[in-house]
Amino acid sequence: MKKTLKEIAALIGGRVEGDGDVVITGASGIKEAREGDLTFLANPKYASLLKETRAAAVVIEEGLQVAPGKPLIRVKNPSIAFSKLIDLLGPKKLVFPEGVHTLAVVSPKAKLGKGVSVGPFAVIEDGAVIGDRAVIRSGVYVGHGAAIGAECHLYPHVIIREGCEIGSRVIIHGGTVIGSDGFGYVAVEGIHHKIPQVGKVVIEDDVEIGSNVTIDRARFDKTIIRKGTKIDNLVQIAHNCDIGENSIIVAQVGISGSTTIGKNVILAGQVGVVGHVTIGDNSIIGAKGGVSKSVPPNSYHIGIPAMDATQFKKIFAAYMRLPQLVTRVRELEAKLAALEGRPADDHAEATND
Amino acid sequence: MKKTLKEIAALIGGRVEGDGDVVITGASGIKEAREGDLTFLANPKYASLLKETRAAAVVIEEGLQVAPGKPLIRVKNPSIAFSKLIDLLGPKKLVFPEGVHTLAVVSPKAKLGKGVSVGPFAVIEDGAVIGDRAVIRSGVYVGHGAAIGAECHLYPHVIIREGCEIGSRVIIHGGTVIGSDGFGYVAVEGIHHKIPQVGKVVIEDDVEIGSNVTIDRARFDKTIIRKGTKIDNLVQIAHNCDIGENSIIVAQVGISGSTTIGKNVILAGQVGVVGHVTIGDNSIIGAKGGVSKSVPPNSYHIGIPAMDATQFKKIFAAYMRLPQLVTRVRELEAKLAALEGRPADDHAEATND
Amino acid sequence: MKKTLKEIAALIGGRVEGDGDVVITGASGIKEAREGDLTFLANPKYASLLKETRAAAVVIEEGLQVAPGKPLIRVKNPSIAFSKLIDLLGPKKLVFPEGVHTLAVVSPKAKLGKGVSVGPFAVIEDGAVIGDRAVIRSGVYVGHGAAIGAECHLYPHVIIREGCEIGSRVIIHGGTVIGSDGFGYVAVEGIHHKIPQVGKVVIEDDVEIGSNVTIDRARFDKTIIRKGTKIDNLVQIAHNCDIGENSIIVAQVGISGSTTIGKNVILAGQVGVVGHVTIGDNSIIGAKGGVSKSVPPNSYHIGIPAMDATQFKKIFAAYMRLPQLVTRVRELEAKLAALEGRPADDHAEATND
Repeated sequence: MKKTLKEIAALIGGRVEGDGDVVITGASGIKEAREGDLTFLANPKYASLLKETRAAAVVIEEGLQVAPGKPLIRVKNPSIAFSKLIDLLGPKKLVFPEGVHTLAVVSPKAKLGKGVSVGPFAVIEDGAVIGDRAVIRSGVYVGHGAAIGAECHLYPHVIIREGCEIGSRVIIHGGTVIGSDGFGYVAVEGIHHKIPQVGKVVIEDDVEIGSNVTIDRARFDKTIIRKGTKIDNLVQIAHNCDIGENSIIVAQVGISGSTTIGKNVILAGQVGVVGHVTIGDNSIIGAKGGVSKSVPPNSYHIGIPAMDATQFKKIFAAYMRLPQLVTRVRELEAKLAALEGRPADDHAEATND
Repeated sequence: MKKTLKEIAALIGGRVEGDGDVVITGASGIKEAREGDLTFLANPKYASLLKETRAAAVVIEEGLQVAPGKPLIRVKNPSIAFSKLIDLLGPKKLVFPEGVHTLAVVSPKAKLGKGVSVGPFAVIEDGAVIGDRAVIRSGVYVGHGAAIGAECHLYPHVIIREGCEIGSRVIIHGGTVIGSDGFGYVAVEGIHHKIPQVGKVVIEDDVEIGSNVTIDRARFDKTIIRKGTKIDNLVQIAHNCDIGENSIIVAQVGISGSTTIGKNVILAGQVGVVGHVTIGDNSIIGAKGGVSKSVPPNSYHIGIPAMDATQFKKIFAAYMRLPQLVTRVRELEAKLAALEGRPADDHAEATND
Repeated sequence: MKKTLKEIAALIGGRVEGDGDVVITGASGIKEAREGDLTFLANPKYASLLKETRAAAVVIEEGLQVAPGKPLIRVKNPSIAFSKLIDLLGPKKLVFPEGVHTLAVVSPKAKLGKGVSVGPFAVIEDGAVIGDRAVIRSGVYVGHGAAIGAECHLYPHVIIREGCEIGSRVIIHGGTVIGSDGFGYVAVEGIHHKIPQVGKVVIEDDVEIGSNVTIDRARFDKTIIRKGTKIDNLVQIAHNCDIGENSIIVAQVGISGSTTIGKNVILAGQVGVVGHVTIGDNSIIGAKGGVSKSVPPNSYHIGIPAMDATQFKKIFAAYMRLPQLVTRVRELEAKLAALEGRPADDHAEATND
């Protein structure tokens, strides 16, 4: 890449502030930027990095006041603008050849749309349907009667079990398993008998799912991930869950069976949610939180078990000063004993210090 | 499916209460049921759903009293009866063709039982033995000298490393890795040297293992999962563990090396257990619990570190009222100071509110 | 294996103490040892097992005093010596045939070193480079332009995405995904737009990575795992992390984006670390710890959120006696009320017992 700042501003619909003839030869983050790089400032709280960055110029928000220095491109949303730039000028995107690789196994009873790419060692079973321009990478398994929407990208070794339905433009990263049996048994005299899991998984449009994720099929009916939701690596979603639109589920979260997650919810890393509860729309659960009961919309919960964040912070502050509280109680006991004219009780076992 | 309630009662050995001529056209859970569906009530605490369900009839426990309404089928165990029904009348089970797919690689030194199915892109190495009627799905890897019992079902991309032994009727879901090297190193001057892991994994009969699970081989000897135990998705079991019979290990649990888990134990979701400890028979560890020392049989532990549940609840109740306790101590200090005729000490830093 | 103790001592450079003519027929751990086995004592705290073991002889540290009994081999580091012995005399290591399996798909634009082994159903894309004597097992995927160093061992189904760089002697266990897209979105009016992730993952020499691990590529630049670090199963490392040399990352740890981990750090099982923080060299985070801010070098932190271990222990000891503290405060209140000549306040709601 070799373009002037002016040319780039035109490409991303921005306005140059400073020298528009600076030559840009690369693009990167504000910390890693090298000479000649264009970078961007997405979060005003990192504005101090503008002084340190080696970048030649910076994409920055319209109204944001910064000390004079580097030439700028002013845009409405620097992060979006920069992503657009990377798409235009960044590393060339890999193109996967249209057609079915000779070493793929595609059932004659499967239906492939236009422009589909099927890599080597992929398996597409009877009755599966693959939408137009979908990319089925090497080693992917698409089960009997499963449906994959248009322009999906299934990375190597993804497994879509029988009967599952994937919407359009869904991205699923390597090693993820969609539609394995829900974890259900009934115990009779200590022996666990498997409960048939005859439902499916439905994943709506524009969902992205990370690597080595597991999403189980429903006992009956469906486990559903609604449109626009993004799921990070190593997440577990159990049978019969209903995950709302545009939610963010960070790595290693686990959601137990039949739980409902609302729209625009954020579950931070390693959160666990018990079964049969509801997390209301727009709620946030802090990292490692353990949700043991339903949570209202627009709330912020943390802790194990998870509680309202304001309450948690108050309690936790007192917890951090517990040894001092013990000392104060001991002092009170001594003073009271003195007032009463008797020796203080021995609570030494309680002090541990 | 289209049968009268009477006909179904005969199939599952139940007794009709109410109109036996009702025509049943489907089967599903009590909440999702549609008109014409048969459903079931497994847990009396959900009896209130009987009024709301759209189901045409309900499979229910022998003695359970319910308000008159829908026709019923009375059975001893509704969940078992319903599973049987799904097996009989539910979606047709997939059948995998007997024989070895032309695009599988099976060593001439491997031994395959009768009626074995080996899917495309599966690899079966020298000396491996596959039991009768086992189903080895596409992309499965069975290592040198590994043994797979009769009627096992290994879902796509399962890896069984060399020398591991799998019993009969074991189900292993997609992407699970059995027998990877235990995590063992010895540090010499800051460099970690790999300790050879030359043991194996033994999985006994009737075990089921979820997707993307990892079970490591022993340093010497064996890591063992005993018969009838059920393991959910994304569980980690380290080298040299011994997991007892008929235990339930929920998703994302991690068990460190050389730990022994008893029979009929339940480890709830995201539990962690340190190495070299024992969890006694019939014990339960609550979700997210961190077990740091051995736990006796028939116990129930929760928390991080895990403690007896009764003790935990007592302590946790006090924890939830810590800010109030701080206030009470402050009041005591003020009153005592008044009694002593001096100003109260300043503990403002302790209150945080 | 059938050798005298003398012969084995010569092989591992040790000194016999006691009967050197004892015949050794196997090798194993001190607990599992059978008659004729050689075992070893790595940790003096298990010295009491010397009396119970059925082993014929024991490899033991030079200066360590033990009760007379079994014949011994004295060495500087018993664990290292024993590992050497297992390498020499243990189960024969599997050898993977040099060359490319006829059912592998290797791009003519890929470059393979000398003595490389490529198993069936492996895919090596355009521009990938494989170092000498590397073993690429069945079903492995090596993306466009990726580089694999000499003597690497990639177990079945490993995925190395495009452009990632793996050093020499790196071992990666089954199902692990290196270089999936970092989890990055920018929200515009509630819709999450994918941020391009155009960086890579760099893994330096002598790293070992367990099964079903996920390590994401950087947004720009690189996610890096420095030399000699060992990573257990089911670990998640997010985009732009920098993991220092010779660190130990135990199973199910999750590290959020742009975090830096120092050298010789130990993250115990199920630890979580937030993004954009630094864990100093030689630090330890205890199991299940939740690191919410940077941690200095040479420190030991535990808890959620993680705090200095000494502080944690002091606070936790007081926490375990919270119900008793509540009782003491109640008694103080009663006594004070008596002194003041009034009835005690009713704090019954605070006691919960």
